[in-house]
Amino acid sequence: MIRILIALFFSTFLFSQPNENDEKQIEKFFKTSLLEGNSYEWLDYLSNRIGSRLSGSLGAERAVAWTKEALDSMGLDRVYLQAVKVPKWVRGPKEFALIETAPGVTFNVPITALGGSVATPSVGLKAPVIEVHGIEELKALGKENIEGKIVFYNRPMQADLISTFQAYSGCVDQRYDGAREASEYGAVGVIVRSMNLRLDDLPHTGAMSYGDQQVSQRIPAAAISTNAAEKLSYLLRLEPKLKFLFRQQCKTYPDVWSNNVIGEIQGSVFPNEVIVVGGHLDSWDLGDGAHDDGAGVVQSMEVLRLFKITGYQPKRTIRVVLFMNEENGLRGGNAYAQSALSSNEQHIFALESDAGGFTPRGFSFSCSDSEFAQVQSWKPLFKPYLIHYFEQGGSGADIRPLKNNYNVLAGLRPDSQRYFDHHHAENDTFDAVNKRELELGAATMTSLIYLYDTYGLVGPIPNSLDR
Amino acid sequence: MIRILIALFFSTFLFSQPNENDEKQIEKFFKTSLLEGNSYEWLDYLSNRIGSRLSGSLGAERAVAWTKEALDSMGLDRVYLQAVKVPKWVRGPKEFALIETAPGVTFNVPITALGGSVATPSVGLKAPVIEVHGIEELKALGKENIEGKIVFYNRPMQADLISTFQAYSGCVDQRYDGAREASEYGAVGVIVRSMNLRLDDLPHTGAMSYGDQQVSQRIPAAAISTNAAEKLSYLLRLEPKLKFLFRQQCKTYPDVWSNNVIGEIQGSVFPNEVIVVGGHLDSWDLGDGAHDDGAGVVQSMEVLRLFKITGYQPKRTIRVVLFMNEENGLRGGNAYAQSALSSNEQHIFALESDAGGFTPRGFSFSCSDSEFAQVQSWKPLFKPYLIHYFEQGGSGADIRPLKNNYNVLAGLRPDSQRYFDHHHAENDTFDAVNKRELELGAATMTSLIYLYDTYGLVGPIPNSLDR
Repeated sequence: MIRILIALFFSTFLFSQPNENDEKQIEKFFKTSLLEGNSYEWLDYLSNRIGSRLSGSLGAERAVAWTKEALDSMGLDRVYLQAVKVPKWVRGPKEFALIETAPGVTFNVPITALGGSVATPSVGLKAPVIEVHGIEELKALGKENIEGKIVFYNRPMQADLISTFQAYSGCVDQRYDGAREASEYGAVGVIVRSMNLRLDDLPHTGAMSYGDQQVSQRIPAAAISTNAAEKLSYLLRLEPKLKFLFRQQCKTYPDVWSNNVIGEIQGSVFPNEVIVVGGHLDSWDLGDGAHDDGAGVVQSMEVLRLFKITGYQPKRTIRVVLFMNEENGLRGGNAYAQSALSSNEQHIFALESDAGGFTPRGFSFSCSDSEFAQVQSWKPLFKPYLIHYFEQGGSGADIRPLKNNYNVLAGLRPDSQRYFDHHHAENDTFDAVNKRELELGAATMTSLIYLYDTYGLVGPIPNSLDR
Repeated sequence: MIRILIALFFSTFLFSQPNENDEKQIEKFFKTSLLEGNSYEWLDYLSNRIGSRLSGSLGAERAVAWTKEALDSMGLDRVYLQAVKVPKWVRGPKEFALIETAPGVTFNVPITALGGSVATPSVGLKAPVIEVHGIEELKALGKENIEGKIVFYNRPMQADLISTFQAYSGCVDQRYDGAREASEYGAVGVIVRSMNLRLDDLPHTGAMSYGDQQVSQRIPAAAISTNAAEKLSYLLRLEPKLKFLFRQQCKTYPDVWSNNVIGEIQGSVFPNEVIVVGGHLDSWDLGDGAHDDGAGVVQSMEVLRLFKITGYQPKRTIRVVLFMNEENGLRGGNAYAQSALSSNEQHIFALESDAGGFTPRGFSFSCSDSEFAQVQSWKPLFKPYLIHYFEQGGSGADIRPLKNNYNVLAGLRPDSQRYFDHHHAENDTFDAVNKRELELGAATMTSLIYLYDTYGLVGPIPNSLDR
């Protein structure tokens, strides 16, 4: 209650109140995005002509070249590339796996190597399986139950959580740390239930890490589809001695150079105050990355385009950053933050869209309570567009390194229910994106960027030399 | 502002305040729907085993028998059928249409007869075309420009409206009244742009009416896909004298008997106060009616099932009504309302789900301001489930006849962005429904029904004899 009163106080007395002009401007952004938007057409090209864009791949490089060209054609004040060294992991031929319940009795199952995994031996890896539901369970089982086996992580995403991202967070340690942890107990390989709330036949890839493990200690890791995970678990109950065979020929090459793609409209009043909007240009290699994160890329580009075609001249510098390598390294986000830190610019606000091109529901803000009170005062402006969700929390992986004590970061929060049906799987494709939902997201982002451009931060911005 | 203060006053001082127990009960409904729900499985059967269910069809009768059986198996206090006479309109063989820009130069285009339309002559109907954007334009053009022609209604749904239902309302007069109006000016047929915000190749059917026009004056009417509408419009600019040929063999038969399907849990304290939850069992014949309104049917059934399996014993009588014939007659809704009026029961609240099985966003309430103030006091209970939309407005077509001066009607309002991609078209199918979105809708409905069961109406309920 105290907090509500404080927020009420702040929003009533301290801020320049949003006015009718803001209403009109925001209405214009929504109408223009829905009637003359270009985000869907861009996404069509990025998804269907370029396709998947894993860091270090030809697709990623084509995406860099094409998005730079698209930004060049928009009449921005500055468009440039920012070189960044990225990992290069290559999947190789399609993976193969089967469950063998008795000699000659086998069931093929769909798997996909986890990003960063080592290969199996070229003839495949065959071993008995031990099913666990988390890393804690490994420790309880101990080396005597694990050594020489394939560890099968089968903790499902928790379906009764309303936010599917929360359900994902509660499971993804199995995928990211599972192989490293299992190898400590002598496991020879790892199979992880796909991070997917549906029961279907698509394996979902994603990043994993060996930490600082020696090369000799690294064991191969793959994701298995949810249906096949259910099947494997069932068969294990019938036949605990069954064996699992899988083969993957993925490989990590030396790092290669790639780029962040950047474009900006210079601020007419405070050119030194920078507002960043972005998504990540790289994607996993199975689908075409339309939701993750083609949507965020084209929506971020659309923010600047909507400013241009509605004739809105920002007071502050509005910069779109298309980050390279969010999926398996975050090198683009880190490189951008480093360059931001060493510049004289003030990054007052950054917004990322990296949760799919679904109906926008609002934003999550990484900020102080007083900055959040300002955000709350803007809520009524978004109500006509059914945007209600304004919470304090995370923002986006690529922009997170930009956080300091005075600025505000935010993440677009689209409806999350369908996101993990597609996430990192071969059905993350253009046809799964609805044009209107994508366009509404772009307009929602543009409106928030507009408000930060108009009103700036509540708190004082330190002199750049003081930071 | 006055209104807000009144609402604040009501919500603060007049109502039994929703409490922690309500929070827990609602949480239980959501968890149970997501973890042990049956709505998706029911919808699978209804969509894939039974399929389309136009009034008077075998599918409709199978749906009656199967839903009654499903309700019978739930251990309700009473399950019964309510006989209702319905229209029987049959599409016949697939329709055929082409644009002829010059003798021998033709383009096939996808059309579908509008529900209730008469057939064309068996060889088809061929005539020049006049494009209009609404019924007003007919009047301006007059008989001299329309006589002997096919009227092509081509006003698109307005894409910059946030609610797609509002965009639909702004166009659907072309479909419903277009033929009747055009025939007054001597038109020989009518082609209507599909009520679809996307550009695609699927024609969308739907009801039309000749009013009280004599049979001899009735002209055939069909919907054309949005892509083909664009093409026809473009070709008309190039060649205003082009001809359009279409053939449809649909037919209206005499009315037949069908049923509303009804099940109920009797109230433990106020059995005479009835709360209705429902959707419509019939569907158009092109897809399998998964969104319109299979979703509403299974969600309404799930409300009673969630009460049963969570052990919640309602104080008031909770009745699920699966209405027959919403699409082309509303006979089920009218018949139910008539029987309600002649009973001694008090229908205090009714909720319909007929806007697709998408992520629930809230409800629209048909009620007085004081009743709405009560609803507003419940909003915080829905916030954890991202349900924010509570507005006064319409409810649902089937329950609307139940409205009186003291009761409250409501309609579930799911996210509307994708609804008209599927509405009345062959892609309104089970695979377009997301399990979680459907289940969240069922839990949202159950929670509101629970609140009305717990708190009842604010205002006095007149003695049934006074009505």
